[in-house]
Amino acid sequence: MPQSELLQLLASVQAARGGASQSAHSSSHGDVDCSIEPTQIEGVFLVSTTDFFYPLVDDPHTQGRIACANVVSDLYALGLAHCDTVLMLLAASTEMEPAVRRRATELVMLGFNDAAADAGTRVTGGQTVLNPWPIIGGVASVVCRERDFIRPIHARPGDVLVLTKPLGTQLAVNAAEWHRKKILAKKAPSFVRRYAAPAALPADAAEPLDDDRHVSPAATAAVAALLGRAVDGMTRLNRHGALAMHRHGAHAATDVTGFGIRGHARNLALAQTADVSLRIDRLVLYKDTPLLATEAVGFKLLAGYSAETSGGLLVCLPPDTADAFIADMCANSGPAWRVGEVVACASREARDAFFADNVEVLEV
Amino acid sequence: MPQSELLQLLASVQAARGGASQSAHSSSHGDVDCSIEPTQIEGVFLVSTTDFFYPLVDDPHTQGRIACANVVSDLYALGLAHCDTVLMLLAASTEMEPAVRRRATELVMLGFNDAAADAGTRVTGGQTVLNPWPIIGGVASVVCRERDFIRPIHARPGDVLVLTKPLGTQLAVNAAEWHRKKILAKKAPSFVRRYAAPAALPADAAEPLDDDRHVSPAATAAVAALLGRAVDGMTRLNRHGALAMHRHGAHAATDVTGFGIRGHARNLALAQTADVSLRIDRLVLYKDTPLLATEAVGFKLLAGYSAETSGGLLVCLPPDTADAFIADMCANSGPAWRVGEVVACASREARDAFFADNVEVLEV
Repeated sequence: MPQSELLQLLASVQAARGGASQSAHSSSHGDVDCSIEPTQIEGVFLVSTTDFFYPLVDDPHTQGRIACANVVSDLYALGLAHCDTVLMLLAASTEMEPAVRRRATELVMLGFNDAAADAGTRVTGGQTVLNPWPIIGGVASVVCRERDFIRPIHARPGDVLVLTKPLGTQLAVNAAEWHRKKILAKKAPSFVRRYAAPAALPADAAEPLDDDRHVSPAATAAVAALLGRAVDGMTRLNRHGALAMHRHGAHAATDVTGFGIRGHARNLALAQTADVSLRIDRLVLYKDTPLLATEAVGFKLLAGYSAETSGGLLVCLPPDTADAFIADMCANSGPAWRVGEVVACASREARDAFFADNVEVLEV
Repeated sequence: MPQSELLQLLASVQAARGGASQSAHSSSHGDVDCSIEPTQIEGVFLVSTTDFFYPLVDDPHTQGRIACANVVSDLYALGLAHCDTVLMLLAASTEMEPAVRRRATELVMLGFNDAAADAGTRVTGGQTVLNPWPIIGGVASVVCRERDFIRPIHARPGDVLVLTKPLGTQLAVNAAEWHRKKILAKKAPSFVRRYAAPAALPADAAEPLDDDRHVSPAATAAVAALLGRAVDGMTRLNRHGALAMHRHGAHAATDVTGFGIRGHARNLALAQTADVSLRIDRLVLYKDTPLLATEAVGFKLLAGYSAETSGGLLVCLPPDTADAFIADMCANSGPAWRVGEVVACASREARDAFFADNVEVLEV
């Protein structure tokens, strides 16, 4: 559901109940990505999170892995590298033949279980229903003490923002879908032109390409390569990020998912104890997504609002440890990049996530 | 999803992983309705459960209450009267006008929150998506010590089975739907005949009624009254049952939901330490559901397999405390009934839930 519609709903429910608002609770406790609740046992907290969505990729096993990586990521954003248990949320499609449905659901479950094993945890329950659209998701929970997690509330002006996965998964997934449906040339003519053999181009290069006649083998390969990079990112666990956050004294973090980097950066700014904003100096994008983003309608990647699935961690680090954090990630998980800075702002109301003038676009 | 299809899927996934089977884990630890996991903290357990489904009643606020009562019930079945936190799982329908959708979703959320407050807990997160069919459900979790819960594994031959809500919610909900769609007379002619004014009956009383011309005001009122009883049951929390289980030394319990009383009773038998079966002597049903069940196709209420939503607890109690448990429930929550007995059986393979000869049907 769109963030604006959801926020309106939550506000209505809070207003009707007249109680302390969820957002006030969130900002003081750091419930940005997870619910963090004290329990009846002194000093012991329950941290839990849920997320579910619709299939993004054709391969069910990969889809299961992505869904599990996505849900445990919310714990990792709190520096929690351990997960006690995962519950699986599934809907099998009423529109599939029963035999196909059974095999697809089985593979989704296997992929989900495999990613849970990689995360050092176990699927101990869940719920499966029939639904027109297939659904895959989960619930991740851990019981811990205050010292085990890093509440995302301690960012300070001067902190360096580090991102641990490139952006652009939604466009990558959509490019593959457009290619499959043979509408790639219409949706992203520049992308096709870049990869088309010159002889295949129409006489007037400005003329819109209205079908896939001009999609060269090179363009087909480029779409597959882009999807491959995005799947590699989406299936990678952010687990090492949680460990590195502790090692290098991270002040706060979030993971980039449905609201895009700017949506989540803004939520993170609002959650801080200090009045701060987050300035984004650099957009690190999967190679070829900027070209797709300039033409595809409805994708706000270059504005920082394109949804990610199982995106990277956005971490606020002291300036003197940011490079060590990046080196640690490179050595043990994957590349990470400086993407901005925490800056002071005048008031709570002024907090925001904004782009620097001449924000750099880095394609990887 | 049908229990058989689900069990096949789980078995395939377990076989493919070659690990300890979930069912072996379940039977030794009592993970019948909830996941019960040890945590990294000595002696501390995380008990969690999830459930979600599609709307059953027209009123969104009531639907929200039912969904919350249903999910926390899994904790109550373990004798856990406290819930640390609830997450809400929602899908708003793509087939509703946006304004209607917004209002309906808001009311569902309010109802869910209200039931959570009645349960002494709080909704601290969740996920909301758009989907063709609306979905409502949740995740309930509590962090506790071994002494706080009653693992459902200690039933002994001679224990009395007590049920804390009547059965028949699915038929009650469907009767209301048939009445709304004007197919009640076709689906349940005997029910209509019972409540029809004699003059309204066709000359040949054996002739099937093929429309709603013969649905008298009395039948309309009877359908409404039945739905009212079922809604009263579905919105009632099983919380007091959890307290009474501790007070009266319950040996094991489950809550009756999607697999019907016999499906859940069988699961409970399989989870016990001892080789036992559960004999059901009495079916306690919402008034008028037996009549509907005899004619409506596909409802297995009289065989004990009709799905319940937010059903009652089925509790195994020592014979000398069963009446005190029932009296406690009557005084503090609602009526409860003796419905059967735990009996010895020869082997693990022989465990089952079965009906006594001449099982009594009690309409309430």
